[in-house]
Amino acid sequence: MGKKIAILGASGYTGAELVRLIATHPGMEIAALSADRKAGMEMAAVFPHLRHLTLPTLTTIEAIDFSAIDLVFAALPHGLSQALVRDLPKTVKVVDLGADFRLRDPAAYEKWYGAPHVAVDLQKEAVYGLTEFYRDDIRTARLVAGTGCNAATVQFALRPLIEAGLIDLDDIICDLKNGISGAGRSLKENMLFTERQTDVLGYSQGGKHRHLGEFDQEFSLIAGRKVEIMFTPHLVPMSRGILASCYVRGDATAIHAALAARYADEPFLNVLPFGQAPGTGAVAGSNFCQIGVIGDRKPGRALVVAALDNLNKGSSGQAVQNANLMLGLDETAGLMLAPVFP
Amino acid sequence: MGKKIAILGASGYTGAELVRLIATHPGMEIAALSADRKAGMEMAAVFPHLRHLTLPTLTTIEAIDFSAIDLVFAALPHGLSQALVRDLPKTVKVVDLGADFRLRDPAAYEKWYGAPHVAVDLQKEAVYGLTEFYRDDIRTARLVAGTGCNAATVQFALRPLIEAGLIDLDDIICDLKNGISGAGRSLKENMLFTERQTDVLGYSQGGKHRHLGEFDQEFSLIAGRKVEIMFTPHLVPMSRGILASCYVRGDATAIHAALAARYADEPFLNVLPFGQAPGTGAVAGSNFCQIGVIGDRKPGRALVVAALDNLNKGSSGQAVQNANLMLGLDETAGLMLAPVFP
Amino acid sequence: MGKKIAILGASGYTGAELVRLIATHPGMEIAALSADRKAGMEMAAVFPHLRHLTLPTLTTIEAIDFSAIDLVFAALPHGLSQALVRDLPKTVKVVDLGADFRLRDPAAYEKWYGAPHVAVDLQKEAVYGLTEFYRDDIRTARLVAGTGCNAATVQFALRPLIEAGLIDLDDIICDLKNGISGAGRSLKENMLFTERQTDVLGYSQGGKHRHLGEFDQEFSLIAGRKVEIMFTPHLVPMSRGILASCYVRGDATAIHAALAARYADEPFLNVLPFGQAPGTGAVAGSNFCQIGVIGDRKPGRALVVAALDNLNKGSSGQAVQNANLMLGLDETAGLMLAPVFP
Amino acid sequence: MGKKIAILGASGYTGAELVRLIATHPGMEIAALSADRKAGMEMAAVFPHLRHLTLPTLTTIEAIDFSAIDLVFAALPHGLSQALVRDLPKTVKVVDLGADFRLRDPAAYEKWYGAPHVAVDLQKEAVYGLTEFYRDDIRTARLVAGTGCNAATVQFALRPLIEAGLIDLDDIICDLKNGISGAGRSLKENMLFTERQTDVLGYSQGGKHRHLGEFDQEFSLIAGRKVEIMFTPHLVPMSRGILASCYVRGDATAIHAALAARYADEPFLNVLPFGQAPGTGAVAGSNFCQIGVIGDRKPGRALVVAALDNLNKGSSGQAVQNANLMLGLDETAGLMLAPVFP
Repeated sequence: MGKKIAILGASGYTGAELVRLIATHPGMEIAALSADRKAGMEMAAVFPHLRHLTLPTLTTIEAIDFSAIDLVFAALPHGLSQALVRDLPKTVKVVDLGADFRLRDPAAYEKWYGAPHVAVDLQKEAVYGLTEFYRDDIRTARLVAGTGCNAATVQFALRPLIEAGLIDLDDIICDLKNGISGAGRSLKENMLFTERQTDVLGYSQGGKHRHLGEFDQEFSLIAGRKVEIMFTPHLVPMSRGILASCYVRGDATAIHAALAARYADEPFLNVLPFGQAPGTGAVAGSNFCQIGVIGDRKPGRALVVAALDNLNKGSSGQAVQNANLMLGLDETAGLMLAPVFP
Repeated sequence: MGKKIAILGASGYTGAELVRLIATHPGMEIAALSADRKAGMEMAAVFPHLRHLTLPTLTTIEAIDFSAIDLVFAALPHGLSQALVRDLPKTVKVVDLGADFRLRDPAAYEKWYGAPHVAVDLQKEAVYGLTEFYRDDIRTARLVAGTGCNAATVQFALRPLIEAGLIDLDDIICDLKNGISGAGRSLKENMLFTERQTDVLGYSQGGKHRHLGEFDQEFSLIAGRKVEIMFTPHLVPMSRGILASCYVRGDATAIHAALAARYADEPFLNVLPFGQAPGTGAVAGSNFCQIGVIGDRKPGRALVVAALDNLNKGSSGQAVQNANLMLGLDETAGLMLAPVFP
Repeated sequence: MGKKIAILGASGYTGAELVRLIATHPGMEIAALSADRKAGMEMAAVFPHLRHLTLPTLTTIEAIDFSAIDLVFAALPHGLSQALVRDLPKTVKVVDLGADFRLRDPAAYEKWYGAPHVAVDLQKEAVYGLTEFYRDDIRTARLVAGTGCNAATVQFALRPLIEAGLIDLDDIICDLKNGISGAGRSLKENMLFTERQTDVLGYSQGGKHRHLGEFDQEFSLIAGRKVEIMFTPHLVPMSRGILASCYVRGDATAIHAALAARYADEPFLNVLPFGQAPGTGAVAGSNFCQIGVIGDRKPGRALVVAALDNLNKGSSGQAVQNANLMLGLDETAGLMLAPVFP
Repeated sequence: MGKKIAILGASGYTGAELVRLIATHPGMEIAALSADRKAGMEMAAVFPHLRHLTLPTLTTIEAIDFSAIDLVFAALPHGLSQALVRDLPKTVKVVDLGADFRLRDPAAYEKWYGAPHVAVDLQKEAVYGLTEFYRDDIRTARLVAGTGCNAATVQFALRPLIEAGLIDLDDIICDLKNGISGAGRSLKENMLFTERQTDVLGYSQGGKHRHLGEFDQEFSLIAGRKVEIMFTPHLVPMSRGILASCYVRGDATAIHAALAARYADEPFLNVLPFGQAPGTGAVAGSNFCQIGVIGDRKPGRALVVAALDNLNKGSSGQAVQNANLMLGLDETAGLMLAPVFP
C-alpha cells in the first residue's frame, strides 16, 4: 500500500501532471482529488488522457478527510494556500506548488504579491523546494514550497556559480523561452491557440515578474550580498518547456567545470560537454534538466543554458521529488520516466 | 536481470521510442543498438532526450553478437528486414516493426511493395502483431510482424464490427489525421517544419496507401469474403497521433455495444460512452487507444473514431506489448505510462 | 475617395481580417469600427498587427452615424444581427458575416439556432452570399448573408456535381479539418493553446453542426429533392484553413471535368489537374480556393477535396467580394493578395 | 508595363516570397524564374500557393536573356552570387539576397565565410541594403547586398542608439528567437517538423554566427571604434518571424526617444509607446518592423525589442524596397500589405 495522497486543484495542468506521475509511482496512491468549480466531475471528463486510471471523483477541499491523507499537493491559484495550509491538521505533510510560501520575508511577499501574508509563521517554517539545494531540510519538513518554474531553471544554471564566486554578480542577464502551459488553464484571450501559434512575445519585462522575488532571495542569500538579475521570459509556441539563456561574465571553462562537478551525482541534472547547449525537446515530459555552457568570442563572457519541463521538473516533478524525500521514499521513485521526443 | 534486447535501426523515431519504453521496463534491458549510418555514435548525440540513460554505443548490425540476445526489435526501413531475419540465429525472437512480414500472401506483398519477397517461408511463419486479436499466436511466435500504424488504428475501430456482421462491408470510409512522425526521420522536403506547420494535406489517396494491403488481408479474412475499404490519411501539424474517423452503415447503438463488450477486459483499449469521440491528445505518449461511437442524424449511419499514438500503440508500444508476450512477461509490463498532456 | 465602410464587431478575427483586406483595397475606406466590450480602445491595442494603419477608434454600434456609411460589414456573434439590420437605415447596404440570414426558412432557422427569427422579412430578402453561385442576386442586394466557412468549402466541392446529377445524393460524406480561428476569439478552455497544440478532435459530429442547415437548404434546392449529407468537422493544430475531404459515389473523371468546366472562368476557384488534391497551406491568407478530384480504387467512388482559408474566402474575403459587387466595384478588387507560405 | 524582373533561386522561400510580393506590385512583372535543380518545372508544382499566378516556367540561369531584364533578385545559396553577378551585363541592376556582398572587407569575408571572395571589386561597389540607413546610396546603386535577416532586426533596434552614443558599446547582448523558415528549404534532419515542433534550441552560440560579420562592420563603422556584440539566435516552433531582445546599458527613456525620433517618418518602422514590446505575430507576412523599449528595475539598463518577418522585411520585402528605389519607383510600392494575424 502506497502513501495516501490528496491533490488540491487537480483540474489544472500541474494537477494533471501530478496524477500522471503518481499513476506509475510505486509508493503513492491517490486518495482524494479536489477542484472546486469542477467538483462532482470525473477526472476523465476534465482530462481525457487520464481515462484509463481509476481515480476518485473530484470533490471540494472541504469534503476531504485529511486524517486519512499522508501528504497533500496543493496546486492552487496563488494566494489560496496560505489559509488552507494553516487550517490543515498538523499531521499532514504539504507540498505547495503555488507561490504562497516561496518567499520567507513577509515584506518581500507583500511587495511581489500585493497583499500581506496571512500565515506568517508558516511562511517562516516552509522549506524552499529546490530539491538539489535544500535536500536535507526537505527530508524533515512538514511544509515545502515548490519553486517557480522559471526560478528553478535559472537557479540550476547559476547557483553553483554564485556559490563559487565565479561570475560577476552585477551583470547577470537571463532570457527565457517558455512553453504556454506555464500560463495555466485559466481563460485569457492572449492564451488562445490562435493568439499564440505564430507569435513569440516577451512578458513581465523590465523586472516585474514575480519570480524575481525568488531570485533576489536565493541569490542574495548565497552571495551574502544583494544580487539582482535581469530576467525576461518569452512565450513561444509550444506547450511545455523552459529554455533559460543566461549571459554572465566569468571564465566559461571554470563555469562548466563547476557545474559539472556540482551536479555529477545528481540523478536529474545533466551537464552537457563544454560548448554544447540543450534544447527543451530533450527534457519534455520528464523530471530531467539539461545544462550547457558556451564560451563567447568576447573573453570573460559565457552563456549558460538550462532546459527543463515547466510542468514536470519545474513544478509537479519537483513536487513529487520533494514528497519522496518527505515520505521516506527513494528520491527518484516514479520520476525516471524518459523524456518524450518527438 | 532483464531479457537482453537488441534494437536495429535505433536512430529512427520508433527506435527512440523503444529505448524510451524499455528505459523504465522492469523486465528488459538494452544490450545492443544498431544504426548503420550513425554507427559509432552515442545515442545521446543522436537523441539528446536519452542522454540520462546508460546505453550501448550505436553499432552496425554485423557487429552484434546475437547469441547474447533474447529478442530483436527490427525498426528498419521497409525491405531490409527480410534477409536480415532470414539470417539470424533461430534462437532469437524477432519483432519486426517494418512492413516486411505484415502480408502473408507473396503476391499481395509484391503488389503493394513492388518487389518479390525474399523470405517467403518466414512470411508465412510470421504472426500478425495486432496484439488484442492475435494474442495466443504471438505468445508462441518466434517472429511477429508489427502492424502498420494506420492499420492498427482502423482495425481497433472496425474488427469487432466486421466479425459480428454489424456493418455494411461495401461502404466503409476511413478518413485519418496523422501526426508527422509517421513519416519517419528521413529527409524529405515536404516534411520540413516550414512545409507542414500551417498545412493539412492528404496523401496516397484513392486506394494507393500500402496499409490497404493489411486491411484487405485482415478484413477479408474475418469477413470470409473480399472487403475493400476506402482509406485516406492526412498530414496534420502535430508530431504524434492518429485519429481515424470511420464512416460506416450500421446501427450505432449496436456498434457501440459490440466494441464496449469486445474491449471490456483489454487494458489498453478504452471505449468511451456512447456519443463521445476521442482526440489524439488523450493518448499521446502512451500505449492506450480510445474509441468512440456516434450515431448520425441519418438513420443507419455511424461514425466510429479511434485515436492512438502512432509511435507508441501504433508501433513501438505494440512491439513491446508483443515482446512481453513472446518473452513470458506480463503483457502490460513497461507500458502503463500515462499519456502526456498537454 | 473610396466607399465608406463600417465594420461591426471589429475586435474579432473576421473583423481584423476585414481591416487587413480593406487596408490595401483601392475602393474602400474604413469609416467606423465597433466593438462593444472594447469600445474606446484603439485597434492597435486590440490587434497589434494593424498598428501601421490609421483607423477610427473602436466605438459602440449606437455611436455610429450610419448616414455617412455606404456599406456595413456585420461580424457579430450569431443572433445579434437580426435586430440590428432591421433597425438600420434602408440606404445602407449590409454584408452579414454571421449566421442570422443564411437560412431562408424561419422554421429551419429556429430548428438549427434554437430561437425564432426576429426579422423574418429580412430573412426572406437576404441573398445567400456564395458569390460564385449567387453573383447576379448579390449585385443588386441590399442585404447579403455570408455563408458558413464550412458551408462555403463543401459547396465549392459539390454544387456543380449535384447540379449536374453526377453523384449519388444519398451517400455524401464530408470530413473537414479546421483551423482553430474558426472558433473565434471568445474564451473557451478547449481553445487554449495548450489544449489544441497536440490534439486533433472532431466536434458537432453526427449531424449536429449548424452549417448542416445551409447544406440542407442549398443542396435540396438545387437537387429538387431533400438532400442530407454527413458532415464532420475536426479541429487541427493550425490557425487558418479548412480542408474538406468529400467522399462521393460517381465517376471521378466526369466529376473532375464538371468542376473544371464550371470554374474555368472563376478568378478565385482553381481546379487542380485530375488526381491531385490541395492542402490548406496553398491558400492560407488568401481569397483563393483550390479543388482536387481523385478517383478511388473502388470503381464509382471519388474523393473531392477543397481547401480554403476560413477567415478569408470562408468569411471576410467572401464578404469583401460580395461588397465589391454590391458597390459596383470590380469583383476582385483588394482580393488578389497571394497566399502566404510558409 | 512594369519593370522586368528575374528571380534567381526561385524555388526557395525567399524566392517564393519575392513572387508573392511582386504578384500585387504595381510596377514590376516577373519575366524569368530560375531554379537549377527544378528547371523545367512550373512554380505551381514547386509552390502550390502560387498556382493562381501566370508565371514563367522555371529555367536555369544560363537560359535567361538578361538583356530583357531590368533587375535581378539573386536568392541563391551563399557563395554562388559572386561569379554570377560578375558575369552579368552591366546594364542589369542586381539585388542580392545572399551573403556574398554584405561585407566590404575581403579579409572579413574570408574570415566569416571561409573562402576568398572572387569578385573583390564588386564587393567594394555593392551597397549594403539596410534601406532606412543607406537609402541614398541604394537609389543610385547597380548592386545592392541584402542584409542578413538577424542583422536587419538588431540594427533596427540599435543603430540609432550607437549613432547617438546612448549605450555602452562593450555590453550589448542580443538574444534572438527565430522562425524556422530562416533555415531555408534545404534538407536537414534537424529542420524536420518532428524535430522542431516541441523544441526551442539555440545555435551558433558564442560568437560563431556569420551575421556577426555584419554587426562588426556596421556598428564599428558608425561608432568609429571596434564594437563586438554578443548575439545568440534560437530556433522556435514557428515558420516566420524574428524577435530580437537586446539588453543594453543606457537610459531607457532616452533610448526610446531616440528611436521614436529617428523612425518617425519611416513607413515600415513602428516604435511602440514606451514600456511596450512587440511580438512577431504583429508583423508576420509584412514588411513592417515593430520596436519597443522597456526600462529595467536596475537603473541604467534597458531592453530594446525588435520584431520583423525574416522572409519579408528581413529579406524579400527589404529586397523589393531596395529595388523600388533602384528602379525609381515609389519606395513602398507593393509593400503595404498588412501583416497576417492570426
